[in-house]
Amino acid sequence: MALIVQKYGGSSVADASSIKRVAKRVAEAKRAGHDVVVVVSAMGDTTDELIDLARQVTPLPPQREMDILLTAGERISMSLLAMAIHNLGVDAKSFTGQQAGVITDESYGKARIIDVTPSRIRDTVARGSVAIVAGFQGVNPSTNDVTTLGRGGSDTTAVALAASLKADVCEIYTDVDGVFTADPRIVPTARKLDRVSYDEMLELAASGAKVLVLRCVEYARRYGVPIHVRSSFTTHTGTFVTDQPAAEGEIVEQPIIAGVAHDRSEAKITVVGVPDVPGKAARIFEVVASAGVNIDMIVQNVSVAATGLTDISFTLPATDGAAATAALSEHQPDIGFASLQYDDTIGKLSLIGAGMRSHPGVSARLFAALSDAGVNIEMISTSEIRISVVTRADSLDEAVRAVHTAFDLDSTEDEAVVYGGTGR
Amino acid sequence: MALIVQKYGGSSVADASSIKRVAKRVAEAKRAGHDVVVVVSAMGDTTDELIDLARQVTPLPPQREMDILLTAGERISMSLLAMAIHNLGVDAKSFTGQQAGVITDESYGKARIIDVTPSRIRDTVARGSVAIVAGFQGVNPSTNDVTTLGRGGSDTTAVALAASLKADVCEIYTDVDGVFTADPRIVPTARKLDRVSYDEMLELAASGAKVLVLRCVEYARRYGVPIHVRSSFTTHTGTFVTDQPAAEGEIVEQPIIAGVAHDRSEAKITVVGVPDVPGKAARIFEVVASAGVNIDMIVQNVSVAATGLTDISFTLPATDGAAATAALSEHQPDIGFASLQYDDTIGKLSLIGAGMRSHPGVSARLFAALSDAGVNIEMISTSEIRISVVTRADSLDEAVRAVHTAFDLDSTEDEAVVYGGTGR
Repeated sequence: MALIVQKYGGSSVADASSIKRVAKRVAEAKRAGHDVVVVVSAMGDTTDELIDLARQVTPLPPQREMDILLTAGERISMSLLAMAIHNLGVDAKSFTGQQAGVITDESYGKARIIDVTPSRIRDTVARGSVAIVAGFQGVNPSTNDVTTLGRGGSDTTAVALAASLKADVCEIYTDVDGVFTADPRIVPTARKLDRVSYDEMLELAASGAKVLVLRCVEYARRYGVPIHVRSSFTTHTGTFVTDQPAAEGEIVEQPIIAGVAHDRSEAKITVVGVPDVPGKAARIFEVVASAGVNIDMIVQNVSVAATGLTDISFTLPATDGAAATAALSEHQPDIGFASLQYDDTIGKLSLIGAGMRSHPGVSARLFAALSDAGVNIEMISTSEIRISVVTRADSLDEAVRAVHTAFDLDSTEDEAVVYGGTGR
Repeated sequence: MALIVQKYGGSSVADASSIKRVAKRVAEAKRAGHDVVVVVSAMGDTTDELIDLARQVTPLPPQREMDILLTAGERISMSLLAMAIHNLGVDAKSFTGQQAGVITDESYGKARIIDVTPSRIRDTVARGSVAIVAGFQGVNPSTNDVTTLGRGGSDTTAVALAASLKADVCEIYTDVDGVFTADPRIVPTARKLDRVSYDEMLELAASGAKVLVLRCVEYARRYGVPIHVRSSFTTHTGTFVTDQPAAEGEIVEQPIIAGVAHDRSEAKITVVGVPDVPGKAARIFEVVASAGVNIDMIVQNVSVAATGLTDISFTLPATDGAAATAALSEHQPDIGFASLQYDDTIGKLSLIGAGMRSHPGVSARLFAALSDAGVNIEMISTSEIRISVVTRADSLDEAVRAVHTAFDLDSTEDEAVVYGGTGR
């Protein structure tokens, strides 16, 4: 018997029949003898519909009221799920973020969890009931007002509750079978990973893999919460995100590479003709940071001695492109650069694997694979367990497939049968 | 400068444009120098849609979860209204029933307010903001779970808040211009009443007038809260429900009759052949009460001496008809009656007026009017300020019109212009 935290996203509870399906799954876990806490998102498109309603009323909704509005979504899904579980003969009670003790800071719309005091959840579980908790929300303790956690908030709620309750596992249910070696829509031969480390999952999430958000993985790593990413449509075992030693009998050899991630959401700004004197690069990134923009990769070209000028390129979220170029243009006189180039037709490929630490030649093999595929590399950055390259956006898919094959990540027919058939 | 509690129902906030219209009205009251607290219902059909969702999930939803579900509706409308008011440059904050200090008993789905501690509302108003409060909901203090107040709950929330805040007036906004001498859909010449006493309003509400629910009027009378029933579509003065002395210059003569109410929602049960011995009537009404059914009018026929048997008829909500007949049938052996007759094709007409206390001949005039109109009277009951008669359902409209005319309640063309034109 274990204590399991299960999290179901909006697509898993999109309508009454989906909710009944999830209820069946929860009831089965309970009947199997486990204690079960369920974190649930708003149904399907509810959140988008509420945002749309707010926009019809005002272009600039106060964020406190926006959070009150949006949290209506989980209120609906959590009570319906509790009813559906109750209908199967298993007692279930639903709780808001506040009732579940999810305490956050005061940043409405993007609040951070600062404490979890789930005494009502513990009591509910101790009495043999299933506790349903609204994801994505908490309470600002100084005002007792509701807050929302922003993007990926429900996953973070689940991991935070699992940490506080010392749950045996946090199951994140989604519409895919787990974490894959690449996006199966681009690489049909991508394989589901049985296990991935926190560090690898962090790099994958930061490099464009959408299955888990970064902050949820950070939280899980900090508190050592084992995450099981799995499909809400099948009973197959998914992917375990954990640093725990493998169970007896499991294959323990660390593969060199966990997977290939890609990201189309970035743009590149090149600051042309920067005087190559100390402090200019620092000034550029100060200006960008003060506009609230996070940058990703940076490349400074070798200075042309004759002119004493250099070019600096960096990547950033394309959604921040306007803010960054405006800030830089405003400061063109004092920085003294010649011009700005903006390019949002780039793609980023990242190769991630904890094993590459001890395996030389990974970069060489990556560059060779891209070269063989005719893909030009525009920028490069590396970490201990990641190599990222920027390419043209229209060659990104081809690049991902080539690299996936070059590192022997493609599944064979036999493996595919094993994954699809037995669940492991 | 006054403290005004305004209540807007679901039809007044049915969509974004309605919400913006209400916001304009609230902002105008605020800009006129008043302190404003707004109680709001769920948007349009939201509550029905949520009930429908619950039914898709389970035929028997646990009431605690049902209340959590339904209170999502006011959460949406209150935050949208706060946003819309904010958009007009007036600060506004929304509060749940719990945050507004609406404390109830534990009867989920039909909770009664046991206390109101609106310190956050007072603080918000003191800081110059408009406070928006979710109607229809409160908190069960022993569990901190949300409760709903049942039918007419938002009106009751408004009156309870007004009482606790010692508001100068509680404005109930609705889709009609006020309280009328009769339902204008049946009596086109019905007049809007400028003023009606709590007692009269109680009798009107109990007799089928739908503009205010009984419990809200009871609450207002107990705490002396002046209610102003008015249209959310016009700025006309509506109807004041109050026992306060009329302001100087007002016409103070008490009219004999306030209005004619009608009710089509009742049914009649006749218990035929009841042994005319002491205790039999008591037993019948014990059985009906133990089935949870409230009865309205009772008539016991004169006993036929030869048989020692009598008939007892009573009226009850038609929705309780099945429960009452089942309970009586079950106890037929011990009560010893011959048979039951059930009739749901009845109508009830009630003539209400505090002035009838001191005016003899009101009954005679009523019966004459009905007789002249060819309407047969099946049952009669009276209170100090009300006479009710049961008729055939299909002669009810004709009866209402005849009585309205007989008591000189019909408006003249001139009066209609005054009401429609100047607002008073």
